[in-house]
Amino acid sequence: MELMERTLSRREIYDGRVVRLHVDEVALPNGKTSVREVIEHPGGVCILALDDENRAALVRQYRYVFSRVMTELPAGKREAGEAPEVTARRELWEEVGARASEWTDLGTMIPSPGCYGETLYLYLARGLTFGEQHLDPDEFLNVDWMPLEELAEKCLSGQIRDAKTVVAVLKARALLG
Amino acid sequence: MELMERTLSRREIYDGRVVRLHVDEVALPNGKTSVREVIEHPGGVCILALDDENRAALVRQYRYVFSRVMTELPAGKREAGEAPEVTARRELWEEVGARASEWTDLGTMIPSPGCYGETLYLYLARGLTFGEQHLDPDEFLNVDWMPLEELAEKCLSGQIRDAKTVVAVLKARALLG
Repeated sequence: MELMERTLSRREIYDGRVVRLHVDEVALPNGKTSVREVIEHPGGVCILALDDENRAALVRQYRYVFSRVMTELPAGKREAGEAPEVTARRELWEEVGARASEWTDLGTMIPSPGCYGETLYLYLARGLTFGEQHLDPDEFLNVDWMPLEELAEKCLSGQIRDAKTVVAVLKARALLG
Repeated sequence: MELMERTLSRREIYDGRVVRLHVDEVALPNGKTSVREVIEHPGGVCILALDDENRAALVRQYRYVFSRVMTELPAGKREAGEAPEVTARRELWEEVGARASEWTDLGTMIPSPGCYGETLYLYLARGLTFGEQHLDPDEFLNVDWMPLEELAEKCLSGQIRDAKTVVAVLKARALLG
């Protein structure tokens, strides 16, 4: 069966600071019509940064949408036209105050393909040297360090539930053996 | 440092079929203000269903937001007030036409905590018996079966990029050994 859906019309709803929303009428494979809600997002990166003792950098920050502090790997949005490797170096510097000499591609991830147009590029960063955090004016986060094995256990047990963190940690663990 | 952000005002933008969008002015930890874009989503479930030969059910469907067919585990949105275990049984029946006698909790996952309020409940389903698909009128998807080890390799190699699929498969693989 041909699965494609064809755009018939588009209604622009919102164009904001991070996301854009439009609602499309589409033609379905059977010729009938339906509605698709599309949230556009610039995409971003996520970095598993390991120090020389195999400890991972974690950021704790208030996630307003979930009304709680969450523990995640460092991450951030791509700026317009920015290559993901550049975003990754920038975010590691801004959030952790670290630079890495060795970068390994951990692939891309689509957080929620139904409505949300975000794609994340995942990286493993090693060979760290340290400076200071350089946070955005509206960004508040604390950095912790945790042994990779302990972090992997927290991902498997469900204590850490952020998708990008679980995916990057379990992929890196398989890679590093 | 106290990381909490406090709501000052809210602007409702959109209330649609799947998502709702509101934009809030918030007080930051340093007393300044910023804007948070919040997409509310009913949340859902994702099911790793294994048959007696350890093959996993996969669904291939057109993902309009990404303009392509994607391969994912069966999944679906929670209806209002529905317990996630009930959603999981319903979605496995609708998408795959299967019932399972053995359900194992694989924990919850937050796909994208920055702006997107979706939480997913992940399950492993075994002891399958089969009937027919019962799709929604605007749902078109094909079901494939793939050995779990092959599926795990595709998650690790990056051929499969859907977050819920990667997380459920790698968690189940660690659980099953």
